[in-house]
Amino acid sequence: MTRRIHVIGIGAGDPDYVTAQAVAALNDTRVFFVMDKGEAKDELVALRRLICERFIREPGYRFVELPDPPRNRVAPDTPAYRQAVADWHARRARLWADAIASELGPGDVGAFLAWGDPSLYDSTLRILETVSAHVDIDYDVIPGITAIQALTARHRIPLNEVGEPVLITTGRQLRTHGLTGDAVVMLDGECSFRVCPPDTRIWWGAYLGTPDEILVAGTVGEVGDKITELRAAARERHGWIMDTYLLRPASR
Amino acid sequence: MTRRIHVIGIGAGDPDYVTAQAVAALNDTRVFFVMDKGEAKDELVALRRLICERFIREPGYRFVELPDPPRNRVAPDTPAYRQAVADWHARRARLWADAIASELGPGDVGAFLAWGDPSLYDSTLRILETVSAHVDIDYDVIPGITAIQALTARHRIPLNEVGEPVLITTGRQLRTHGLTGDAVVMLDGECSFRVCPPDTRIWWGAYLGTPDEILVAGTVGEVGDKITELRAAARERHGWIMDTYLLRPASR
Ligand SMILES: C[S@@+](CC[C@H](N)C(=O)[O-])C[C@H]1O[C@@H](n2cnc3c(N)ncnc32)[C@H](O)[C@@H]1O
Ligand SMILES: C[S@@+](CC[C@H](N)C(=O)[O-])C[C@H]1O[C@@H](n2cnc3c(N)ncnc32)[C@H](O)[C@@H]1O
Repeated sequence: MTRRIHVIGIGAGDPDYVTAQAVAALNDTRVFFVMDKGEAKDELVALRRLICERFIREPGYRFVELPDPPRNRVAPDTPAYRQAVADWHARRARLWADAIASELGPGDVGAFLAWGDPSLYDSTLRILETVSAHVDIDYDVIPGITAIQALTARHRIPLNEVGEPVLITTGRQLRTHGLTGDAVVMLDGECSFRVCPPDTRIWWGAYLGTPDEILVAGTVGEVGDKITELRAAARERHGWIMDTYLLRPASR
Repeated sequence: MTRRIHVIGIGAGDPDYVTAQAVAALNDTRVFFVMDKGEAKDELVALRRLICERFIREPGYRFVELPDPPRNRVAPDTPAYRQAVADWHARRARLWADAIASELGPGDVGAFLAWGDPSLYDSTLRILETVSAHVDIDYDVIPGITAIQALTARHRIPLNEVGEPVLITTGRQLRTHGLTGDAVVMLDGECSFRVCPPDTRIWWGAYLGTPDEILVAGTVGEVGDKITELRAAARERHGWIMDTYLLRPASR
């Protein structure tokens, strides 16, 4: 009997972003595997537990913490970076395979809770593919509301212009390549929108979907400094920040 | 007392993609405004009604059909196209404003149900912005699972390579500009992936999240013809098709 695993997208902020499909998968799960990020992200772990408490009808489940293997810190723009990430994934896959084999009996159901959607800038699926080479598992993926959907919903804006493309990218990519068209920027610790011309429009959001949400919209010239200040202050206050933004070059 | 409107993303296929937030908004709504597409999309209208029946606890709601104003058909690559779309949006906004004013009393709550997420290749938000110039409304947006999330979940794949960008685009854009990097293609009636080199990887999905779902993965060279044939046959059988795919250029 194969062990089953759900990879459950829990949405990017509001517990009410959880889907009916995710609720069914939560209720089907006996063991939740949680990565111990060892960071000041206790609030995110707490939110995961809150979601379980709120949506699981019978409390027969438990949490198992997976320690994060040590990571070789390599600058992301060096050729060694991809290799370092791959090594780290391989070490994690080993740890996860061991945990699954020892914590789940044959036929049991485990789950990983992914912030937002499991497919977007998240390593769970990549690691599980490797895990499945070590231990016999059958896994499925439950989609979740991403920070991108949270951003556009809270600003009440379309993601794209009529029939036009939009790029999903990172702060690093934006700094390296500049703005080449409409783009959503994630994973940006450095307010990289400052590389854009001042007439670029920006819709920015932090802690989207949570009680601490902050929204700012305008042009980079008008609101760029304000965002930079708000971000630094909020980060200081909370100890961490998650922010995302949509950029649109000035009308062509 | 201002009329309130929810724009509710209902997910792109599976009724279980509906979020807890959407369920709350559905239950808060008295009048659902439905666009009468006048097409063979009866199944999609039926799915919307099914979602209401399944998730609304007290049946005090009703449906109001909004006729679609006639549209000047203009080829999408002509300069007149944007204008034609804008005119059509303006006519729709008038119709919607009239319907809201006559069907909702002050303080009443109406809703529009958007397929997938309201921000992604959908005109509801653009039109409502104009509507709010004609009639006093207060609207909010409830995000939904997009066809992109459905595609990656069902194929159990990450959307992006580690730290890399991905473009969300249309079949037309792909044919015009070619493939410049990882891309998700939507709104493609013509299997435009055929413009890509044969070693391009493709993950294709039709009717995602529904009982008729079809998934195919491989390289364009290996599975391109098969997708083209499957798509034509499925479209013939159902009378309509919705498909989406992720393309990745051969490893650089
Ligand atoms: C590792 S990625 C994970 C993304 C996630 N899988 C999703 O679907 O949104 C983390 C990045 O997502 C964005 N993000 C996630 N949650 C957010 C939130 N509630 N508010 C703003 N940005 C958020 C930030 O850009 C952050 O750097
Ligand atoms: C007008 S757009 C609306 C997209 C929607 N707002 C969303 O969030 O997915 C319609 C396009 O979405 C894609 N699509 C929507 N639902 C789909 C499904 N269930 N399976 C495959 N593609 C789908 C197709 O590319 C289709 O041409």
